[in-house]
Amino acid sequence: WKVEERDGIPILERVFSFPDFAAALRFTQRVGELAEQEGHHPAILTEWGKVTVSWWTHKIRGLHRNDFVMAAKTDGIYESSAKGPSPEG
Amino acid sequence: WKVEERDGIPILERVFSFPDFAAALRFTQRVGELAEQEGHHPAILTEWGKVTVSWWTHKIRGLHRNDFVMAAKTDGIYESSAKGPSPEG
Repeated sequence: WKVEERDGIPILERVFSFPDFAAALRFTQRVGELAEQEGHHPAILTEWGKVTVSWWTHKIRGLHRNDFVMAAKTDGIYESSAKGPSPEG
Repeated sequence: WKVEERDGIPILERVFSFPDFAAALRFTQRVGELAEQEGHHPAILTEWGKVTVSWWTHKIRGLHRNDFVMAAKTDGIYESSAKGPSPEG
């Protein structure tokens, strides 16, 4: 995970690799379901063979402890999916 | 749809609006399934209440007639989902 700045707001971002589009889409779906469960929503960019997940806390326009918790849970989904090769980011 | 330039490549992009994250995620899933069927894959950015879809043809690093066909099919999915208010883009 890297902290990037977007429109002046720090965000926690990581790129996950997959063998194809379908695997990327499945990961997006699972991260989206996690987001719904937790009531905290990332930006998820789905492309062929990769998904970029960005966490930040809209209300404070920055990073909160919860964003780091969500990042760790996102990693857990990736590891349990056993879909891609080793992570990029 | 607007033609935007990203890293020197023209892409066809539109933002779709939704009432919440779950509806946005469902749309992402349906556009992803279309992409798999057609063997042509966009970038799909899923956020709370909106989805940004970008079409371009990787091989020619630009826009092909097929991108416009896919854009029209994406509109069809949005209209048939009847999920959101009127489109933004």
